[in-house]
Amino acid sequence: MAKDKGLTPQAQDFSEWYLEAIQRADMVDYGPVRGTMVIKPYGFALWENIQRELDRMFKETGHQNAYFPLFIPVSFFQKEAEHVEGFAPELAIVTHAGGQDLEEPFAVRPTSETVIGHMWANWIKSYRDLPQLLNQWGNVVRWELRPRPFLRTTEFLWQEGHTAHATQEEAEEETHRMMGVYATLFREFAAIPGWEGKKTESEKFAGAVYTISYEAMMRDGKSLQSCTSHYLGQNFAKAFEIKFQDKDLEAKHVHTTSWGFSTRSVGAVVMAHGDDKGLIMPPRLAPIQIVVVPIYKQDTREQVVPAAESLTARLKSAGLRVHLDDRDQHSPGFKFNEWELKGVPYRIELGPRDVEAGTAVLASRLGGKETVGLDGLSSLIPARIESFHRALYQRALEFRDAHTFVVDDYQAFQAKVEEGFVKAFHCGEKECEKQIKEETKATTRCVPFDEPEASGKCIRCGKPNGYGRRILFARAY
Amino acid sequence: MAKDKGLTPQAQDFSEWYLEAIQRADMVDYGPVRGTMVIKPYGFALWENIQRELDRMFKETGHQNAYFPLFIPVSFFQKEAEHVEGFAPELAIVTHAGGQDLEEPFAVRPTSETVIGHMWANWIKSYRDLPQLLNQWGNVVRWELRPRPFLRTTEFLWQEGHTAHATQEEAEEETHRMMGVYATLFREFAAIPGWEGKKTESEKFAGAVYTISYEAMMRDGKSLQSCTSHYLGQNFAKAFEIKFQDKDLEAKHVHTTSWGFSTRSVGAVVMAHGDDKGLIMPPRLAPIQIVVVPIYKQDTREQVVPAAESLTARLKSAGLRVHLDDRDQHSPGFKFNEWELKGVPYRIELGPRDVEAGTAVLASRLGGKETVGLDGLSSLIPARIESFHRALYQRALEFRDAHTFVVDDYQAFQAKVEEGFVKAFHCGEKECEKQIKEETKATTRCVPFDEPEASGKCIRCGKPNGYGRRILFARAY
Repeated sequence: MAKDKGLTPQAQDFSEWYLEAIQRADMVDYGPVRGTMVIKPYGFALWENIQRELDRMFKETGHQNAYFPLFIPVSFFQKEAEHVEGFAPELAIVTHAGGQDLEEPFAVRPTSETVIGHMWANWIKSYRDLPQLLNQWGNVVRWELRPRPFLRTTEFLWQEGHTAHATQEEAEEETHRMMGVYATLFREFAAIPGWEGKKTESEKFAGAVYTISYEAMMRDGKSLQSCTSHYLGQNFAKAFEIKFQDKDLEAKHVHTTSWGFSTRSVGAVVMAHGDDKGLIMPPRLAPIQIVVVPIYKQDTREQVVPAAESLTARLKSAGLRVHLDDRDQHSPGFKFNEWELKGVPYRIELGPRDVEAGTAVLASRLGGKETVGLDGLSSLIPARIESFHRALYQRALEFRDAHTFVVDDYQAFQAKVEEGFVKAFHCGEKECEKQIKEETKATTRCVPFDEPEASGKCIRCGKPNGYGRRILFARAY
Repeated sequence: MAKDKGLTPQAQDFSEWYLEAIQRADMVDYGPVRGTMVIKPYGFALWENIQRELDRMFKETGHQNAYFPLFIPVSFFQKEAEHVEGFAPELAIVTHAGGQDLEEPFAVRPTSETVIGHMWANWIKSYRDLPQLLNQWGNVVRWELRPRPFLRTTEFLWQEGHTAHATQEEAEEETHRMMGVYATLFREFAAIPGWEGKKTESEKFAGAVYTISYEAMMRDGKSLQSCTSHYLGQNFAKAFEIKFQDKDLEAKHVHTTSWGFSTRSVGAVVMAHGDDKGLIMPPRLAPIQIVVVPIYKQDTREQVVPAAESLTARLKSAGLRVHLDDRDQHSPGFKFNEWELKGVPYRIELGPRDVEAGTAVLASRLGGKETVGLDGLSSLIPARIESFHRALYQRALEFRDAHTFVVDDYQAFQAKVEEGFVKAFHCGEKECEKQIKEETKATTRCVPFDEPEASGKCIRCGKPNGYGRRILFARAY
């Protein structure tokens, strides 16, 4: 791929399009240790904007941030039987430190249920210590055999929420409340529609009673499990002996939850919205919402650049994220391509005639140009950003719905999972799920909450359906 | 230490006072792996407030956040001779991952100069790619033989800034600029005075040309190196072959800097301001600036608590960080002690007579109570917070100056370093510095920038002074 050529078209090779787009948009690079990534400023700025909105919503729902150690004794993982089975194969182990072999090796955290459970066992004594509503921003490590930047990396950044409650009811409410926060982030900020629902037993988090996920469709029709929220029941409470004395003076195990949202979401933004020209950034999260490109020749530079500077300053002081591209060494056309590749929602073109006329050209990354007055721009742009957001969401929703198929026949199923999501009945048996995966590469994504109750026969084996409604299948990242 | 007793007095055992204060104020706990800590919400909230101010200042000075991998090939450390000597003994090494022994083990980052240098070698081609002004918020690991929460822990949180420049002049400016940002954080937000100056050769960062530090006095007279900024010259540029084509078409090595500010600063806040009752939080960073304590009996609860709630809401909407302590199970006296221990700058006491009179009692953590009108509180408190900040800074400055001694005699030196900082002449020889450390436990802290030029003989060996001025000695954390 030469730097001056366009991207590989999505229709030709979506996976290659993705890798080219994120690198050419300067979001990411490969780290020297296998499977690790370097998040470059443009990619990180998107993650920071996601963090800011999530962190605000976590605090509004009563959570506090804390920090637990990166290193966890390996023995901790063995305390919860399903958890160790799920995570042991992915652990990175430190065996040597401070110039010596360690007596007890420890793991680099893949997730923090165990160490938080261990601490809670000391901290929680009484019902007055509950609920515990904690969140941690940090890095985790899960050894990946087939890494891909943002989507699957050996190390990734995320937040992991961990809460402990006196009752099952409260803990289940929390599990759903936090999926609600995530769904708000995806819908209201990332402009990505999705299906919320329970994962099947085979697909749930290792150690959970159940897992809820948000399944979003990428533009190749595949699903990206974009975040998860788990009701852990008393599994970790029993493994780590997290007990409290309740109001009735009885000693009880707490009920816990955990929920996580990672830099995977950056990949979701790219693959849910991008096109053959590059990224399309959802404007409420975009690192740069508007780029100002002055158009001038040698003899008009002094006329145009100061006007572009002053416009940029005015837009900034209106609270917008604006960048002025005043690089002399590149042509306007080069710049247009570059900012389209980076997915900046709006571009303002300002030439000498515009300056004279007190106008500019406003070009949308979703297509379309309009001539606008310079004076009213600071108030016009916020309205345009809102309509851009709505249009982007609508575009993704229409794409999703056009690529979601209700199917009752296994042959049709096999054909349709190559194009998008399939809603079908399933018996609920693990072995049958596994067969479908082997035969079609599709997995159960979730049992959508908004799917109406219905009954029918399993799409593959014909047994009665196990979920009381159709469930969602797709090939997934 | 029983939970209902006071803290060990500072004068009796400062170190014990510190450990008790941070744990009883609910800032921190010990992690299960040796030398690691758990930062609890009250400690983390202080760190978040520090982060917010630093991050803002980094961006105002043109820096962008990015993220580099936690894992670094061990071979990278061997590329810079001084760097490997300094860090090899502290590395934690991953030898096993994904169920297999690794062919090439890697280190958990102790600092990221090497991996960033490696990436820059690919990214930087031309003078147009410079300067690189990057910052990373994250965790690092340095194996600690004598860990102490916040001050020295095997894992700690920090930010590390890394910049690359075309010229030495620019890079040196950057080194000083970022120390200026740190000094602003300490003086204007943490209310901690300090001395900025160059470290001696023995105390500089492993791989730096020189290191600047901010040395702050704790209330036992010891110094805490609170942050550092390094001019790295072309050392890492040469080790990692980071070259650019300059305007004159010549290929040149870049000049790099790095600068770091860690959760150590939380320990600095505790030890620079605390007293026998507990912490004293600098109000611009305090997680809670004001606690409202309603004072009531069973029959006045309905009168007092709603008034306290409404007051709390008004103060919150004035942008203040306020907490209402309406716990029924504790007496006002218990609450006063607890919030004093946690160092909350202001306490508002509100009883039934106050509610009737439209007043409250405002108590300062620095001493003194006043009766104030409820109506004017939202505008009064911001002014009080400013005067609290100034008073706290002044108190620390006076303490520091009262415990800083100008000394020209080695016997006096030995006596005075037990009480505080000492300004003395030194020959500048490493061996002599080492002897002083062995004989007095004091180390050279820095060559203060604001110390006037002067000449004299080395405090220990009598040779001519090597720095053209007195330098700062102290026992240090």
